[in-house]
Amino acid sequence: MAKFMDVHDGFVGVTAEELNAAHDADLKIEGEEGVHFERAWLDPEAGKVFCLSTGPSKEAVMRVHERAGHPTTQVFELTAEV
Amino acid sequence: MAKFMDVHDGFVGVTAEELNAAHDADLKIEGEEGVHFERAWLDPEAGKVFCLSTGPSKEAVMRVHERAGHPTTQVFELTAEV
Repeated sequence: MAKFMDVHDGFVGVTAEELNAAHDADLKIEGEEGVHFERAWLDPEAGKVFCLSTGPSKEAVMRVHERAGHPTTQVFELTAEV
Repeated sequence: MAKFMDVHDGFVGVTAEELNAAHDADLKIEGEEGVHFERAWLDPEAGKVFCLSTGPSKEAVMRVHERAGHPTTQVFELTAEV
C-alpha cells in the first residue's frame, strides 16, 4: 500500500460543508478501489484542495476522485515523510 | 494562528535523510517566526515536497523556509479540513 498527496484546483469559494460533502463522496466509494482518503485541506481563496490517501496506485486514487465528481491528475506518491 | 500547506518543487531524487535534514533546519529557526512545521511529505520522483505548518502568516512560513535554504512562494492558507 502506498501513500499519496493529490491536489485539486478550482475550489474557489468552497465552504467547509462542501469540502465535507466532497470527502464523504470519496469515502462512500473508495473501498471499491482499495483506497482510503485520510485527510483533506482547503484553501478557498486559492481554490486548492490537498488530499492525503493510501491506496494501491495513483490510478486508483484518480478513479475514486473522478467517480466522486472531482477529478484531478495531480497525484504524487509519497515515499518519505516526517 | 493559521494553518498552511506549502509546496516545493525541484526535490527530485532527494532521500528520506535529506528530507529529515531540511525539516530539522526549519525546526531550528521556526520559533523565531512563531511558526511550527508539523509534517512534511516527499515525492522524489516528481520532486515535490508538501509541508503542513501553523503560524501567524504566509510570509512568516516563507521566511523560515527561505532562511533554512529551501525557499518557496507556494504557500496556501487552510481554512477548513477533514
